[in-house]
Amino acid sequence: MTENRISRRRAIGLAGAAGVAGVGVAAGTGALLHGAFDPSPTSANSASGAVPFRGEHQAGITTEVPDRLHFVAFDVITKDRARLVELLRDWTVAAARMTAGQDAGVVGAVNGAPEAPPDDTGEALGLPPSGLTLTVGFGPTLFRDADGRDRFGLADRRPAALAELPRFPGDALQPEISGGDLCVQACANDPQVAVHAIRNLARLGMGAVSVRWSQLGFGRTSSTSREQATPRNLFGFKDGTANLKAEDTELLRDHLWVQPGDGPDWMAGGSYLVTRKIRMIIETWDRTSLGEQEELVGRTKGSGAPIGQRDEFDEIDFKATGPDGKPAIAETAHVRLAHPDLNNGARLLRRGYNYVDGSDGLGRLDAGLFFMAYQRDPRKQFVSIQTQLARHDALNEYLRHVSSGLFACPPGVRDQGDFWGRALFD
Amino acid sequence: MTENRISRRRAIGLAGAAGVAGVGVAAGTGALLHGAFDPSPTSANSASGAVPFRGEHQAGITTEVPDRLHFVAFDVITKDRARLVELLRDWTVAAARMTAGQDAGVVGAVNGAPEAPPDDTGEALGLPPSGLTLTVGFGPTLFRDADGRDRFGLADRRPAALAELPRFPGDALQPEISGGDLCVQACANDPQVAVHAIRNLARLGMGAVSVRWSQLGFGRTSSTSREQATPRNLFGFKDGTANLKAEDTELLRDHLWVQPGDGPDWMAGGSYLVTRKIRMIIETWDRTSLGEQEELVGRTKGSGAPIGQRDEFDEIDFKATGPDGKPAIAETAHVRLAHPDLNNGARLLRRGYNYVDGSDGLGRLDAGLFFMAYQRDPRKQFVSIQTQLARHDALNEYLRHVSSGLFACPPGVRDQGDFWGRALFD
Repeated sequence: MTENRISRRRAIGLAGAAGVAGVGVAAGTGALLHGAFDPSPTSANSASGAVPFRGEHQAGITTEVPDRLHFVAFDVITKDRARLVELLRDWTVAAARMTAGQDAGVVGAVNGAPEAPPDDTGEALGLPPSGLTLTVGFGPTLFRDADGRDRFGLADRRPAALAELPRFPGDALQPEISGGDLCVQACANDPQVAVHAIRNLARLGMGAVSVRWSQLGFGRTSSTSREQATPRNLFGFKDGTANLKAEDTELLRDHLWVQPGDGPDWMAGGSYLVTRKIRMIIETWDRTSLGEQEELVGRTKGSGAPIGQRDEFDEIDFKATGPDGKPAIAETAHVRLAHPDLNNGARLLRRGYNYVDGSDGLGRLDAGLFFMAYQRDPRKQFVSIQTQLARHDALNEYLRHVSSGLFACPPGVRDQGDFWGRALFD
Repeated sequence: MTENRISRRRAIGLAGAAGVAGVGVAAGTGALLHGAFDPSPTSANSASGAVPFRGEHQAGITTEVPDRLHFVAFDVITKDRARLVELLRDWTVAAARMTAGQDAGVVGAVNGAPEAPPDDTGEALGLPPSGLTLTVGFGPTLFRDADGRDRFGLADRRPAALAELPRFPGDALQPEISGGDLCVQACANDPQVAVHAIRNLARLGMGAVSVRWSQLGFGRTSSTSREQATPRNLFGFKDGTANLKAEDTELLRDHLWVQPGDGPDWMAGGSYLVTRKIRMIIETWDRTSLGEQEELVGRTKGSGAPIGQRDEFDEIDFKATGPDGKPAIAETAHVRLAHPDLNNGARLLRRGYNYVDGSDGLGRLDAGLFFMAYQRDPRKQFVSIQTQLARHDALNEYLRHVSSGLFACPPGVRDQGDFWGRALFD
């Protein structure tokens, strides 16, 4: 019954000492020692390194998108505002530790006593930080629940931009996997690290919150940096070529970050997150001809170039016509309907993921896109774009929106005493 | 409408030429050029490299376990034996291509015509081989279905070792996610690559097979090589310390590979796979004290050492007593009940994965272990061990077996004309 107190950092050391082949051990400990609390940069120095937790904005928004996601939405089950605040404090401490590659708390419990449950569940012992980011958001129901009750005295602090999304044509939303009072997005290069983080936050929240729904994802479908190649969605197409990028400082100010004066002060420096789980009818798509697939999307499948152009990043010419005299890019093509030019310039920072949830019992893979987009005001951005798409996008035949979420993600945690959403509760 | 013929290799080249930041591009193309059809080694030379597809045994059994799994079980829906054989031929060709980092077929269809559906779905274009292995198995129902029908004239070729597993105490199996006529295990370092492979095999099988169930996994819970560190399961413990390893040639002969004379000739060089989806009652476990967790498992959580020992790989002393005079390792400890010494020397080659399937609608994560074990004869190995565990293992309070599968995995594909299971149909 030795080693009742063991930290993640200690475990990494032990693994090294025992001569076990490392899982990015060097990069992991290096990041722990050097980068963990550096407040400035927002990307991990390697796939296994640490992303700084504190800063002006929350990490995990413009941060370079790692390849794995575990997203969870919680219902708040406590009625006690003080307990909710305590939870956000506890979560902030644990999040700072875990994103630095440490355990959520010491495995051997507060006093190392084997009589107490461990303060960390242990499955990430020995694993490096793996680029983990944890990003929190507040749903509309935290401010006023479905029955109109002001549960925590927050109703008058609810931003107008956090208006429930309208029902879009074709929506097939399942309430049990939609909404939520709180959300946490965990992104990492190792799914075990992302899952460990969500599981430990859920553990810390026992009695105060209950998991409403959660979603795993892989193979990021957008890039938030010019350093990253544009990845492919499960239709096999490059997706998010025109995404907002971390390098576009002015565009981020205009389209991503809530500015002072936009609404209540506590959201300045934050951003609004829309999530949509979009099931793809993969088997039908796979029987569609290449020509039709490209026409529906408006891009060439191989290179990702707009139809009629050569390169993925070529400007799209919506006025060009094909040899048959019709528009080269169809009126109902996805790339046209989603383009800023057709949406009053509205742009999004997307960081969605592909998902496969097994199969659906009808012989088909249960798979698609877990769409996530950050923005300054969903009313002018996501709602505007999705209204177009839901009405006209020819791709809808192969898509079904089954889950929807909307969350106000507060600004970053600044210093040791600060915690997620402090300004909201001040 | 350019680039209708685009291969995965071509796409990698294009990505390079366009100056896009690589996703292991160099390693990927290197493996394509050098290692893809090398018949000897069974591990990828890097996380992005290729594992040889052909050989005496199927890859994906002793092959070093990569971090991601997509496992699928199919029902055969055709009644035509020739169609089934054709499918196995088609799958073999596609599997050889995809494990080498190529597309399943050319994206622009057989003749590059945009009128035809693509012969590859495209989502892995530009991605390296990523250590992909594809391993096929045949379930008992392929030989004789639940109604006793000899569907494909194979009934007299069914090995005695492929006897349906008995019902174990506590089993809570869901038939709709259990069994299957065929299975394919896809392991890779990139989930997009594993998912792409399964999806394309399912696409090739349209009309002949239907997906019965499928499972994604991550964070391998066992190592099959002394080069790999022992990973942790979602209880936070190191698991599979005593696993059979690729280096143990004699043990593999005795415990893993079907030997000539064991049963029908077509299985010589093959192995039997048992799958069990084991839900973990994580929230209850997380409220259990560290001392109790360690007693239930029989190992120290931090180091993985047997209780009373110092190091993970120390010999377990089942006769040792603790300060209280009781056995240091409890009579009902998992590590004792699963040990070869208590199971007539029976050993397994485990290569299971952790899974999280979201949440269960009751506020809990739907998570656990997707157990997979290869062996020479399940009657003497898995059934013997699981009978012990199901009866006595104190961990059962935190476990629920919800899915079960048994498959005969034939030997490897030898040469260009060979295909998966050819000897079975000869």
